[in-house]
Amino acid sequence: MNMPVNGALVRLLPVKAPPPSLNDNTADLDRLLRSLARDPALVGGPSLVVPQRRAGLVAERFRRSAFRGAALLNEEPGRWEVVDLLAELPARLPLLALDLGTTHLEAVLLDGLSGAELARGSRENSQLQYGSDILTRIHFATDRQGRAAEGLTILQQALLQDIDALALELAAAAGCRPEEIRGLSAAGNSAMTHFMLGLNPYHLCREPYIPQVNAPGPLRAGELGLNIDSAAPVHLLPGVGAYFGGDLLAGIVACDLDLAEKPAMLIDVGTNAEVVVGCRDWLVACAGAAGPALEGGVAKMGMRAAPGVIERVDIDPASGWFTYRIIGAESGGAAVGGPAGEGRPEGLKARGICGSGMIDLMAELFAAGMIDIRGKLRPERLGERLLSGPGGPALVVVPAAEAAGGEPVVVSQVDLDALMRSKAAMYAILSTLMEQVGLPFTALERINVAGAFGRHIDPERAVTLGMIPDLPLTTYRPVGNSSLIGAGRYLLEGEVRRRIGEVARKITYIELNVNHEFMIRFSGSRFIPHTDRGLFPSVPYQLTESR
Amino acid sequence: MNMPVNGALVRLLPVKAPPPSLNDNTADLDRLLRSLARDPALVGGPSLVVPQRRAGLVAERFRRSAFRGAALLNEEPGRWEVVDLLAELPARLPLLALDLGTTHLEAVLLDGLSGAELARGSRENSQLQYGSDILTRIHFATDRQGRAAEGLTILQQALLQDIDALALELAAAAGCRPEEIRGLSAAGNSAMTHFMLGLNPYHLCREPYIPQVNAPGPLRAGELGLNIDSAAPVHLLPGVGAYFGGDLLAGIVACDLDLAEKPAMLIDVGTNAEVVVGCRDWLVACAGAAGPALEGGVAKMGMRAAPGVIERVDIDPASGWFTYRIIGAESGGAAVGGPAGEGRPEGLKARGICGSGMIDLMAELFAAGMIDIRGKLRPERLGERLLSGPGGPALVVVPAAEAAGGEPVVVSQVDLDALMRSKAAMYAILSTLMEQVGLPFTALERINVAGAFGRHIDPERAVTLGMIPDLPLTTYRPVGNSSLIGAGRYLLEGEVRRRIGEVARKITYIELNVNHEFMIRFSGSRFIPHTDRGLFPSVPYQLTESR
Repeated sequence: MNMPVNGALVRLLPVKAPPPSLNDNTADLDRLLRSLARDPALVGGPSLVVPQRRAGLVAERFRRSAFRGAALLNEEPGRWEVVDLLAELPARLPLLALDLGTTHLEAVLLDGLSGAELARGSRENSQLQYGSDILTRIHFATDRQGRAAEGLTILQQALLQDIDALALELAAAAGCRPEEIRGLSAAGNSAMTHFMLGLNPYHLCREPYIPQVNAPGPLRAGELGLNIDSAAPVHLLPGVGAYFGGDLLAGIVACDLDLAEKPAMLIDVGTNAEVVVGCRDWLVACAGAAGPALEGGVAKMGMRAAPGVIERVDIDPASGWFTYRIIGAESGGAAVGGPAGEGRPEGLKARGICGSGMIDLMAELFAAGMIDIRGKLRPERLGERLLSGPGGPALVVVPAAEAAGGEPVVVSQVDLDALMRSKAAMYAILSTLMEQVGLPFTALERINVAGAFGRHIDPERAVTLGMIPDLPLTTYRPVGNSSLIGAGRYLLEGEVRRRIGEVARKITYIELNVNHEFMIRFSGSRFIPHTDRGLFPSVPYQLTESR
Repeated sequence: MNMPVNGALVRLLPVKAPPPSLNDNTADLDRLLRSLARDPALVGGPSLVVPQRRAGLVAERFRRSAFRGAALLNEEPGRWEVVDLLAELPARLPLLALDLGTTHLEAVLLDGLSGAELARGSRENSQLQYGSDILTRIHFATDRQGRAAEGLTILQQALLQDIDALALELAAAAGCRPEEIRGLSAAGNSAMTHFMLGLNPYHLCREPYIPQVNAPGPLRAGELGLNIDSAAPVHLLPGVGAYFGGDLLAGIVACDLDLAEKPAMLIDVGTNAEVVVGCRDWLVACAGAAGPALEGGVAKMGMRAAPGVIERVDIDPASGWFTYRIIGAESGGAAVGGPAGEGRPEGLKARGICGSGMIDLMAELFAAGMIDIRGKLRPERLGERLLSGPGGPALVVVPAAEAAGGEPVVVSQVDLDALMRSKAAMYAILSTLMEQVGLPFTALERINVAGAFGRHIDPERAVTLGMIPDLPLTTYRPVGNSSLIGAGRYLLEGEVRRRIGEVARKITYIELNVNHEFMIRFSGSRFIPHTDRGLFPSVPYQLTESR
């Protein structure tokens, strides 16, 4: 992604001063500041200072380059800090934006001068070895008295090493050294933010769910021991609550929700489902882990998308034939019980099914009459695809002979029940939120769907299930990794940095974990598409009537 | 010295916030900032931030003290930084002000709440072991290529250890721990400032005499490794040139020269002679090491005052009897060749003579006809007080039998010549400066004389010698250690911090080392009182006519 640059967090300003003389014997550093202060980019702006720890280095470099060069400036709260002096104006200014996901870190290296994307990469979060979910990691990081324990440092160091590894990888790809990366922004949920900064996360997961910090102040990379330029500012995007972190605020500004003239929505399904509705005048958000309904349900949605995984399923109602598409296959798919599809890479066979594939599957199972409106398998319609085991009934999606490693791809009733809870939770979240703001779904001009969920999900199928509201399909727009995009824009646009602070102040955050309305709506949503059939007029009537 | 407090650099603000709940689940730190932002002292002021390195500690302490206590704030360029949270509002807020002299450090511990002096002390500068003068130390600190050498770190550490020792001593005297000292200001010449911050001083002593930094940014004590509170801000007062450091700017604000309605002057004789003239509208300064004339001359003036040292001499012209006063003697003195004086402490005998004693001696020698107008000893008037040795003629001030350790106190012609150069340099500096500003001495309403020189010198005698202008004696006012007073006021008064920046911008600095006018005036001043007799109308005519 190339982005516009308008007031980057880190600036390079050319500077040229007359050399000292007996008639002009001001100090080297004051000479530098005097010349810089005349730069149109700084005139009338806030204080211009050289942090004292950098004073000797900057003064020395300024003198050695004969009182000219390019000054490197960091925007800090209330002031500009001159942190370095380069002999020549470089051709680009590498800045690193990060999305700190619970399971994956994604990064993009941007040029602070042109806004061009220099490199991009991702990496599994090494904290996974200490706990796959946030709750386990919080326990690992704290003791029973609520004090920070050694585990907190372990988690912090694991994350910082991941970031260093990404910085090294992206710098290499862009043809520069990691020390040439002059700034870093990171957007993550509140727990990831706490882990990165070594802050005590104990109260994040205990009622009333209080972070130590919502809006972390900037640090220097050197303070964290990162291997990028030690003077590089490190900004963690602010959050507004334990369950509503900087990744969400990044998402809001990434899709300009806070500038929208008419109400719009952002849905981000990562480890939690997080939803914001609003426009330039108001913003209301909710997020959950909304009780057991979401844990391991929506939470996992779209998280396992990887090569070899089924992301799309079609079932022919007449023949009962399954057609599926595998991630990594360039086009087409394989019809189960039919000929192998064209264009599938040699040897690429199905080895599982991801969240969006599950939604597809379930919608198709329902359309084919293979499950009922409660999402229960109908054995009489499944024939030899039905398996019965100690774990209850299950459905064979891909038989062993066609699947990777000879292991059939199977979806159990337990899996389907989890998805039913997830889709119910999702619809309950969305409708509770709209109830809170007093608007019908039809008032929404746009629904931005972030992340892997947004990239892979087919809105039509999700509507069929009753997971998302029955609106014109053009309302739904996949926006990619909005957290990463927001972190990138934060680096490059002063207006975005200002807006994110405003959004943090403006947003009203609803805690769903204790919301009774949500639980009532959740119950009504545990049917396909819903107990209130009128909410989904576009879902063909016969689909729901006949069962 | 007790001082007024009006906007201290470090503040303690009581804070009390409602505890978190599901309806008010903002983060601990945001809760703190939200409550603090309502404090009248901060409303409408600059940004309020918690430096990220302190965020965990502050949040933890706020929670442990049940969301109340006293917040510790540091004023920083462009913002307030909340650096700590104390469970209770303490009774006082110790802040340390320092004068970084080339030979001595002086310190005062002030209460940032009441302005009361809590303790006071001084200490020899340990850097003396690496060089008694600044030039030697600069050579020690740098290599021949102008790079900072290991010696710079040695000098810095020596100074920081001295400061730690003073902090420990003053804290003990005040009944607190050094870690309870929450802020530090220091005023020194440019070289001392460079040594303290580990900045390369190479170009300070080489034409065109350029410091690396005139206005150092604030640091934290922890960055320097000082043993006071690691979050305490450390401010070095700004200077305006290699020979015009923070000690002088401190002096200017200490005696309110920059607020004076009519022109006034500040004379500070330390390692260099430094002089400022001006008022609220303009300020002109000069300082030197003004060539060889000042080196070891004015430079040493008043620096050796210590118990047992002669500070005052009277000579009866008729009898030729010497009467002297010794520092440490409560009153009276001993008349040489007469009876021992009353009130002198048992065993306290003269062991030397300090700068102000020398001025007294010389003025009296002149009045008694024992030296001529060039300051040369007149052997025919000295009798048995005259000594002749390989080093040339000398004068016995106190014979061996009356002096400490049986060693006579002797002043040689070489000593007298040095003092003549010093007094000539001083008058030349003052008159050159007035020439530059186009005003006669009589335009000066007040002449503030700082330091030991100001404390010990008798203006009448100095006028007799032609060292200082012939003005009503009430014009002269001793102001004590103006550098230390300025450093103290800097800590306690926001207005003084603002003014010192203004003074630095406003001041015009004249480099005397290259001023030809100065050299001409110097020549005319090498007589007692001057070649132009009319400049000193109050000096009795017969004193100068008869010789």
